[in-house]
Amino acid sequence: MSFLKISKLLQFPKGTSCRLMRFLVHILHCPAISPFHTATRLSMVQTGEMQTRLDECRAKVAFQGEKVRTLKKSGVPQSEVTSEVEALLLLKHELADVERQVEELKPLYCRCRTQLENLAKRRSFFFPAFEIYGGTAGLFDWGPPGCAIKAEVESLWRRHFVLYEDMLEVSGTCLTPHNVLKTSGHVDRFCDLMTSDTKTGDCYRADKLLEDFIDAKLADSKGISKETQKLELIRRQADSFSTSEMYELFQKLGVQSPLGNALSEPFPFNLMFKTRIGPKEDLTSETTTAYLRPETAQGIFVNFRRLLEYNAGRMPFAAAQLGLGFRNEIAPRNGLLRVREFQMAEIEHFVDPKDKSHSKFSDVAELKLPLFPKKNQLSDGKIIRNITIREAVESQMINNETLGYFMARTFLFLTNCGIQECGLRFRQHLDTEMAHYASDCWDAEIETSYGWVECVGHADRAAYDLTHHTKATKTPLVASKRYEEPRLLKSVEMVANRALLGPAFKKDQTLVLESLEEKSDEEKLLIENDLTTSGSYVLQVCNGDKFTITRPMVKFETVEKKVSEETFVPGVIEPSFGIGRIIYCILEHTFRSRGIEDQEERCFLSLPIVIAPIKCSVLSISTDARFNPIMQTIKGDMVKLGVSSKLDSSGASIGKRYARTDEIGIPFGITVDFQSLKDGTVTLRERDSMQQLRVAVRVVGWVIIQ
Amino acid sequence: MSFLKISKLLQFPKGTSCRLMRFLVHILHCPAISPFHTATRLSMVQTGEMQTRLDECRAKVAFQGEKVRTLKKSGVPQSEVTSEVEALLLLKHELADVERQVEELKPLYCRCRTQLENLAKRRSFFFPAFEIYGGTAGLFDWGPPGCAIKAEVESLWRRHFVLYEDMLEVSGTCLTPHNVLKTSGHVDRFCDLMTSDTKTGDCYRADKLLEDFIDAKLADSKGISKETQKLELIRRQADSFSTSEMYELFQKLGVQSPLGNALSEPFPFNLMFKTRIGPKEDLTSETTTAYLRPETAQGIFVNFRRLLEYNAGRMPFAAAQLGLGFRNEIAPRNGLLRVREFQMAEIEHFVDPKDKSHSKFSDVAELKLPLFPKKNQLSDGKIIRNITIREAVESQMINNETLGYFMARTFLFLTNCGIQECGLRFRQHLDTEMAHYASDCWDAEIETSYGWVECVGHADRAAYDLTHHTKATKTPLVASKRYEEPRLLKSVEMVANRALLGPAFKKDQTLVLESLEEKSDEEKLLIENDLTTSGSYVLQVCNGDKFTITRPMVKFETVEKKVSEETFVPGVIEPSFGIGRIIYCILEHTFRSRGIEDQEERCFLSLPIVIAPIKCSVLSISTDARFNPIMQTIKGDMVKLGVSSKLDSSGASIGKRYARTDEIGIPFGITVDFQSLKDGTVTLRERDSMQQLRVAVRVVGWVIIQ
Repeated sequence: MSFLKISKLLQFPKGTSCRLMRFLVHILHCPAISPFHTATRLSMVQTGEMQTRLDECRAKVAFQGEKVRTLKKSGVPQSEVTSEVEALLLLKHELADVERQVEELKPLYCRCRTQLENLAKRRSFFFPAFEIYGGTAGLFDWGPPGCAIKAEVESLWRRHFVLYEDMLEVSGTCLTPHNVLKTSGHVDRFCDLMTSDTKTGDCYRADKLLEDFIDAKLADSKGISKETQKLELIRRQADSFSTSEMYELFQKLGVQSPLGNALSEPFPFNLMFKTRIGPKEDLTSETTTAYLRPETAQGIFVNFRRLLEYNAGRMPFAAAQLGLGFRNEIAPRNGLLRVREFQMAEIEHFVDPKDKSHSKFSDVAELKLPLFPKKNQLSDGKIIRNITIREAVESQMINNETLGYFMARTFLFLTNCGIQECGLRFRQHLDTEMAHYASDCWDAEIETSYGWVECVGHADRAAYDLTHHTKATKTPLVASKRYEEPRLLKSVEMVANRALLGPAFKKDQTLVLESLEEKSDEEKLLIENDLTTSGSYVLQVCNGDKFTITRPMVKFETVEKKVSEETFVPGVIEPSFGIGRIIYCILEHTFRSRGIEDQEERCFLSLPIVIAPIKCSVLSISTDARFNPIMQTIKGDMVKLGVSSKLDSSGASIGKRYARTDEIGIPFGITVDFQSLKDGTVTLRERDSMQQLRVAVRVVGWVIIQ
Repeated sequence: MSFLKISKLLQFPKGTSCRLMRFLVHILHCPAISPFHTATRLSMVQTGEMQTRLDECRAKVAFQGEKVRTLKKSGVPQSEVTSEVEALLLLKHELADVERQVEELKPLYCRCRTQLENLAKRRSFFFPAFEIYGGTAGLFDWGPPGCAIKAEVESLWRRHFVLYEDMLEVSGTCLTPHNVLKTSGHVDRFCDLMTSDTKTGDCYRADKLLEDFIDAKLADSKGISKETQKLELIRRQADSFSTSEMYELFQKLGVQSPLGNALSEPFPFNLMFKTRIGPKEDLTSETTTAYLRPETAQGIFVNFRRLLEYNAGRMPFAAAQLGLGFRNEIAPRNGLLRVREFQMAEIEHFVDPKDKSHSKFSDVAELKLPLFPKKNQLSDGKIIRNITIREAVESQMINNETLGYFMARTFLFLTNCGIQECGLRFRQHLDTEMAHYASDCWDAEIETSYGWVECVGHADRAAYDLTHHTKATKTPLVASKRYEEPRLLKSVEMVANRALLGPAFKKDQTLVLESLEEKSDEEKLLIENDLTTSGSYVLQVCNGDKFTITRPMVKFETVEKKVSEETFVPGVIEPSFGIGRIIYCILEHTFRSRGIEDQEERCFLSLPIVIAPIKCSVLSISTDARFNPIMQTIKGDMVKLGVSSKLDSSGASIGKRYARTDEIGIPFGITVDFQSLKDGTVTLRERDSMQQLRVAVRVVGWVIIQ
């Protein structure tokens, strides 16, 4: 039903707030998921332009500075130098001016942290877990409004991704046995580098010490030089250095412990929480060792065969999982942004590695995303905002259609959640920082008062996981593709003379045969050539042993076969969401402040209706008991409809109560007053515009579909 | 909007299936939550009557058996004995007959396990986690249909409890530090008794060995005797014996290990998974030791102060939490029923311990629940079905209104989920089996092929947890109640002469004063009396030390104070749901089987719409490409609406595809066929009745609210 129809039906006055109408649509049915987001890009354009001016000014200052330095060295008359120095000072003044303007233009979210933290604490959005026991670093609890927002974000995620794409949602366990995570590489490589103070023995995270050291250096230095640019580049890669690279940097730059002592050589620390399953007390046994999963993805990979079967063997398809991930952070910090237990939402989209197109790509192809590819990170540091996803894929900036498609869908999801476009970018991973399983990766990063925060990863994991689990379990995790017509394919096949092989190699026979089978067709033909020409071939197997194969033992023949299908290990494109981080970013991005007449400044959260913790408050103008039946009727209707509402008939002034509901982002308020008793009307108020509208309870009743 | 209105609007023919109409209502708005459930109780009454007949027959056989034994002993003529033996045989025949009838009347859920397990495996409802690695006992994954049902059950739970009761939902962490669970009693008492084979050293769960032993005994014995009744009683209490009681029973009954060896004295094994937070390697430190929470409740208790503040200090109120619980079971078994990681949904309703009434009690007071109080468990084993909740609370069978209210709400929730009333009972805990924190407890148990399964606990935890956390943290977890008018209260206050106390007791002064303060008013008056009459009083403090107090040191006076509010530690009523168990029970209770004409028997799940994994399938009669646009339109409308649907345009016959959707419980199917191309109509099919209806795509479109 259109806004217009509803407007006519309810006979609302002209000019009624669009938000009010949307509320009615919302409570008439679940919110539509539009593939395109229509928010204006005004704010982004504004900051974009200022950023360009800032960059220009900086370049001019750098150029002029260099010129002055050259002149000074060259020994020209002092007067010539003086005029250039004056020009430099003028340029520096201009730069300072532009920097101030950019700061002023900076969105509220970069400046609101203290206010927001106060609000979050006061209204129990989230708080340190086990607070009365002194808290545990890196663990947070969601209080009532935070928990409700989390439920709504998860529900929207389900509709936006799982339902919209017909994904197969699964729910696996957090407890994961040792051998699964050994195969996935997490036992060996899910580590952070630690280092210890050589005097006190205290442990620190190596990359954080490096970052802090560089931050301090940059804060001390004035202006931009080659030196600072170099440091910035090192800082950006801080979490991707190897043990030896990190140690070298410590020594080269002179990084010390916070107490000013020398640091030990960094060493890896595994970030998984370890436990033991079952009553056995054998502490060394790997069969009872388990970890809390560091990602939900493995729970999908190990079930690939079942999922493909459930999907009737059809490819491509996607599976999804919402659930907890755990990471035993060495130094949790930045509130919700780096925690030890976190809700994740992951999608594993399985594709034919030779065909990473996506059937719905055209739906999003013309969207322009803020892209920050690796070459820009290593050069001018600029975000690209003027090319479409189609162009980005065609120019190979983004590796493939499916990756581009999901980046676009993520963009729509985040902006629907209330993230402002001007504070959103897609940053490509540098080659040095990619996870051990990934072959290309773009992070959706959101700008906050803590800087840019990685909230959604989009990784092309290729066939890494399925290949390794196949090897470890001898269970083929493969898909197949039927050709439209059978094809004639050439291949090289081995004919083995086991009567000779057995006596020659005894228990090693299988190993020898497997090693030969594993060779590519080209290699097999080369061996055949060796055998024909020299009569023997020396085979080196995986453990390094060598075996001499003679002509009569094996023969390789090129054969032609009619093949009607092809088996392949699927590639995986993985969008992976950190729900807690996204929610923190939403809170910063929707934080607003307003002065009301002569009153103190009041802050509120302009949360989109779809993720607001409670959709509607039901208030009474005073504590008069006669209001109760009307309030209960409205509350009852809301419950029937599944729309969350909050009754408040306390004695506080109506203004204070509105302020309280604004603070937790309730978009609508229905107020029962003395006129309600006379004519059966109530007031409907919208949070952001504070617009109020008088409607009949009967109409509210109708709206709420009795 | 009523069924009638929709029916008129859509011009459906008379006699259209009620389910079809309900579907339309469902997709028009979220399902209404009615406080009363209207399902017929026919099946319950039928089985109830048969059970009565069975009980009567058994009693007659027992009585006659006893009579025969007495006669035999008494030495009366053989002829007299013979006629009584014949009467006994007749009665035994009758009993066998009734037993057969009861077996036949037994709901399908007691007989469907093999079929259901096949179905669940074939359609990936759930399966062992890490299957390709050989699986891990006690860990299960939810596949696509199971995961979707789980999401719907959780969503219904939120609407039915959290939204309906304005509960404060929170979300805490699974990782819980040592000291929190030490306080709650779980570190010391969350244990199962284990025992080991004295020869092999293999470990077993003691209660399971006892149960298996008794089961074998009972299977061997014929009929009912005092001996078997005794054994049954022991079996019922198997998990509540102390270490010494268990050992005594082992020896008295002759319980042995499965290998026939003697068993060791049982010992407690803690069931919590242990891990370590942070990079410190100190394995003995309690500050870094953490456990995976065994229940979500503690996460609510430790946040009590914040929650009360969020609720503006008002009592009573309830908090709720949905999340994972963990239990390192010694011997996981029975599929989903006893697992190591499980989804829980817990409510902590905080009340004034002196007033456990509930404001909405009258809404449910006339409901008749199947009650199984402890006295019936220890006597005739009968379930009471004919008294109302009001009567049960008034007669003190159920301890208080709030406990009764939640039992009724749980009853409505479970029956709304598809649990059949005849297979549902509320069993009161025996005094011996109550958890360490509980003072009264009623389990909602559901009958399955595994017997009666505890799915929801309703415990009155009294002030246990808040009191202990207050002591451990010195943070008062209390609420207060304002009197309508200030009251004059008498109390005994101490006046201490510190100038004398200090020199007399030095460092023990505080201890002495605290010990005196802690005394009750009566005790203080007695001490005052001692001091007045004998001039001194010997005080024994908590560590056993004694101190002599003399007259001049302290004085106790009775004072009168105007008090306007009262502070108290709230009592807690806790309904606690095991989501996985409930889902397994729903699957058994909604399992149906039907023969279709000459075809093989087909099974399906008669899941209520509200928890069906997918609400609607969209099929085409053949793979003709012309159907695609219509199917895509319908799918698109469904997505907009947030109604889950599943496209299937595969080549399988329409009958096979209907059977597939029936198997996973999809309640409705829309089929596009050749007529659709001509006149724009489609078929709407209902799962249970298999009724079909032809409607215009345009109408489907209207229904789906464009």
